[in-house]
Amino acid sequence: MSVDAALARLQDLLGNAGLITSAPERQPYEHGPRYGAGQALCVARPANVAEAAELMRLCAAEKLRLIPQGANTGLVGAASPDSSGLQLILSMERIKGVIDIDPVDGVIQAWAGTRLSDLNQALAPHGLCFPIDLGADPSVGGMLAANTGGARLIRYGDVRHNTLGLQALLMQPPGELLKMGNRLHKNNTGPDWKQLFIGTAGSYGIVTQAVLRAHPLPRQRATALIVPSSLEAGLRLLQDAQAQFADFLTAFEGISRNALASVLRHLPQVSAPFDPLPDYALLVELSSSSAASEHFDLDKLFMAWLERHFDDAIVDAVVDKPETLWRLRHAISDSVKQEGKIVAFDISVSRSRMPAFRAEALALVERDFAGAEVFDFGHWGDGGVHFNLAIPPAQQPQFPPERIEALRTALYDLVAKPYQGSFSAEHGIGPFNQHYYQRYTQPEQRALAGRVQAVFDPHCLLGNTRFT
Amino acid sequence: MSVDAALARLQDLLGNAGLITSAPERQPYEHGPRYGAGQALCVARPANVAEAAELMRLCAAEKLRLIPQGANTGLVGAASPDSSGLQLILSMERIKGVIDIDPVDGVIQAWAGTRLSDLNQALAPHGLCFPIDLGADPSVGGMLAANTGGARLIRYGDVRHNTLGLQALLMQPPGELLKMGNRLHKNNTGPDWKQLFIGTAGSYGIVTQAVLRAHPLPRQRATALIVPSSLEAGLRLLQDAQAQFADFLTAFEGISRNALASVLRHLPQVSAPFDPLPDYALLVELSSSSAASEHFDLDKLFMAWLERHFDDAIVDAVVDKPETLWRLRHAISDSVKQEGKIVAFDISVSRSRMPAFRAEALALVERDFAGAEVFDFGHWGDGGVHFNLAIPPAQQPQFPPERIEALRTALYDLVAKPYQGSFSAEHGIGPFNQHYYQRYTQPEQRALAGRVQAVFDPHCLLGNTRFT
Repeated sequence: MSVDAALARLQDLLGNAGLITSAPERQPYEHGPRYGAGQALCVARPANVAEAAELMRLCAAEKLRLIPQGANTGLVGAASPDSSGLQLILSMERIKGVIDIDPVDGVIQAWAGTRLSDLNQALAPHGLCFPIDLGADPSVGGMLAANTGGARLIRYGDVRHNTLGLQALLMQPPGELLKMGNRLHKNNTGPDWKQLFIGTAGSYGIVTQAVLRAHPLPRQRATALIVPSSLEAGLRLLQDAQAQFADFLTAFEGISRNALASVLRHLPQVSAPFDPLPDYALLVELSSSSAASEHFDLDKLFMAWLERHFDDAIVDAVVDKPETLWRLRHAISDSVKQEGKIVAFDISVSRSRMPAFRAEALALVERDFAGAEVFDFGHWGDGGVHFNLAIPPAQQPQFPPERIEALRTALYDLVAKPYQGSFSAEHGIGPFNQHYYQRYTQPEQRALAGRVQAVFDPHCLLGNTRFT
Repeated sequence: MSVDAALARLQDLLGNAGLITSAPERQPYEHGPRYGAGQALCVARPANVAEAAELMRLCAAEKLRLIPQGANTGLVGAASPDSSGLQLILSMERIKGVIDIDPVDGVIQAWAGTRLSDLNQALAPHGLCFPIDLGADPSVGGMLAANTGGARLIRYGDVRHNTLGLQALLMQPPGELLKMGNRLHKNNTGPDWKQLFIGTAGSYGIVTQAVLRAHPLPRQRATALIVPSSLEAGLRLLQDAQAQFADFLTAFEGISRNALASVLRHLPQVSAPFDPLPDYALLVELSSSSAASEHFDLDKLFMAWLERHFDDAIVDAVVDKPETLWRLRHAISDSVKQEGKIVAFDISVSRSRMPAFRAEALALVERDFAGAEVFDFGHWGDGGVHFNLAIPPAQQPQFPPERIEALRTALYDLVAKPYQGSFSAEHGIGPFNQHYYQRYTQPEQRALAGRVQAVFDPHCLLGNTRFT
C-alpha cells in the first residue's frame, strides 16, 4: 500500500478528530521535552481501545512502525519518532478518564491517557492520592512505560510497586487485548506478565488501562534541613531514621553546597538556611496520614530524634515548614540551568557507596574535565544521584560535543563498572541512552531480549527502543 | 544414552555427595508436604553453580527433565516428580549460605538453598529481618518460585516486592547464567527479567542466588482481638487503621466463630476470649522498629483508636500480648485438621467484597454440600481467604472424591468468576491446581505463555508446571 493509501485508511478508521497530518499540528507530538525530535507520517489519536486495536492490525499488515506516546513528558526520547517521516505516533491522549475508585480496596482504575494530576484530583475527595511525586504531569501509560520513581520512592516505591493490574494491546497477534491481574492485592496464578510492560517504553505492547494502588493522603508532615558531620554520618542518620520512623520517613534528599548556592543566587527571595553554606545538606521529611494527637505528633517525634543526634552525626539543622524547604529543593534543576550548559545524569549506586562514589566522581571531573562545575543533588533514600554538571559560558569553547560525550561516558563507566550502579535510575531507556544500554548490559541478557522481542514484536513495529 | 549411562555421567559430574539414587534415600525428596508424590530417576545435589550449569547441559543434551526443588515445603506439588521414574530432582540444598549483608543498603544476598530461618539468624545481629511470616521454613529459591506471601503482607508485601536482584541458570542456551538487577533500590535499564522467575515454580530457569530487602526488626508491638459490629464495619475499621497507622499496621486477620471454637476445643489450655463466641473476630497488630517513647507508644495509640470506635464499629475487644493472640491464630490450621477430612482453599477476593463473598460461599456450601463444615479464616489486609472446610467422619461416606472435586470446582468458580478473585492467592501453581489455571486463565494469556516458554524451555525440560 502506498503512503497515501495508508493515510486514507487511517482517515476512514479514526476520523478527523483522530488523525493529525499537517506539519504544524504534528510538531508538539514530534519533539520530546529534553531529547528526541523527528518527523512522523501522522499522529493517530484513537478514541477507544477498539480503534487502537484496529490501528495496530493496520500497522501490522502494512509494516508501519508505531511510536506510543502518552503526555510526551519522558526524558530519554522514547516517545519521539525518527526523522524518516514514515513512523506513526500513537497518542493515547483521548483514551483517558478514571474508570473506578474503591477506597476500601485502596485502588484506582484508569485509562492509559489519564494524567497523574487527574488521578490525584479524583482520589482527593476519598482522602487518597497516587504518591508518585515529580515535576511533570505524565499519563498513566507513560508512567508505566518509564516505571516512574520520584522524590518519595523510599516511602511508596516506584510505579511497578503500585501496579496491581493492567491491560495491553499486543502487536502479535495484532491488536489482541491481554488482561493481566486486576485489583487483587494477592494473586499467584502463573507468570506476572504485566511486569514485562512496565519500564519498557511500550515496546512489548500498548497499555490501555491500569489498576493502581492509592494511598491515604498525609495529614501531618515534619521537615528539616540537616547538616551531617560527614557523608558517612549522613548514612548512619538514614539507617537510623528508617529504623525509628519506619515508613513515616517519606524523603531523605541530598543537596550539595554548589546546588544550594545556585538556588540562592537565582531565587533571591530565599534566604540562606546556613551561613556559611555547608558542604552538604540533607532534606529529611516525615509524614503520616494520621492526624497529630497527644500520642503521636510527628513534630515532637522528629525534634526528639534530631536532639538525640545533635553534636554527633548532626552539626546544624533548620526545622521549617515543608513548603519552604521543598521550594528550595525543587528549585535546584531550574537554578542550575542558569549556570551554563547542563550535562545531566540520572544514576544510582547502592546507598552504602554514595559517599565514596561522590568523592571519586568529583575527583574525576576535577582531573579530566576541569572547567565543568558539579551541582549534585539526589535521593539518598533510594541511592539516586542527579550528578548534574554545568559548563559555564566562558568554558564552553573547551567543551565541544565530543568532549561532553567523553565526560558522559567516563561518568557512566564509573557508576556502572566499579560501583555496579545504574546508568538510568528513573528515566528509563530510549534512543537517547540506548547505546549505553548496549555498553553496560550483559550480552546474555540482550540475547534473551532479542528472543523475547521476536515473540511480542517480530517485525519491530513498536517504538524506537530496542533491548537487543 | 541409556538411563544407566546417564546415571554414570551424573555420578562423574556430581560425585557421591551430589547424587542420590537409592529408593529409600530418594523418598523424602519425592513426596511433597501436602500434594505431589512420584518416583524420580535420582536426586541431583550440585555443590555449586558450575555443577548445576553442567547438569543442565547434560539434561538438555539427553532430554532429561529436571524438577527444581528447594526445601520441599510447597503446597501445590510443583517440586515433586511424576511417577515415570525418568525425571531428575534438582535439589538446591547444597548451594546455600549468606553471601553478604549490607545494613546501610538494607539488603541480604544469599544462595538459593539458604533457608528463611538462616536469613533471619544472619540478619538479627544487625537489627534486621526478612519479614516473610509463615509456618514453614522454605529456601530462598522456593520462596521466589512460589512468590511467598504470609501473614504480614499488608505491611511488607510479598517476596516479589522484596527482591532487588537475582541470578538464574537458563535451559536455553543450556546452563547459561543470567544476572538480573543487583542491590540497587532504583534501576530502570530495560525489561525487568527477574520478574519472570518469580512465582513461576522454576519453569523459566533455576534461581541460584538473590539480593533481598531486609527490614528493621520490630521493637514494639500492640495486638488486640476485636469483635466488629458487622463484617462491613470490619472493612471500615481496616480502612481507618490503614489511614491512621500507615505501615505500622502489620496484620489484620479474620477468624470465624467455627475456627475459634475449633481452637478452643483442641487447645484446652487456651481460655475463650469472648463468651459467647462472636460470629467473627479480627486480630489486629501494630508494630514498629522504633522503641516506645513518650512521643510514640503504640499501646497508647492503639487504645485511643479502639476507644474511638467502641460502641460503633467495635462491640467487644481483648487487648493482649502478641504471643497469646498469635498462638490462637496459628493454632487454627492444626485444630481444624482434627475436625474431619480437610478441603482447603487458598483464595483471594478484593477487600471490599469479602463480606459478600463469605455470605455467598457459606450459602453455597449449605445448599449443595450440607454436612461439610466451614472453618474459615484469612488475611483481611490483603483479601486472602482460607475458606477451609472439614468433612466430619460421620459425613464422609456422603463425600466421595468426585463430590469433593465438585465442591472445589463450585467454590473456585464462585471466587474466580462473579467475584473476579484468585484461585491461588499465595501458594502458586503446580500440578495440583494446574487444571484450574487452565479453567480460569484467559486463552490469550495461555497462548502467550506457550510462545514465551518456547524461548526459555523449548523442549519442556524444566519442572512439571505448564502455563500454556
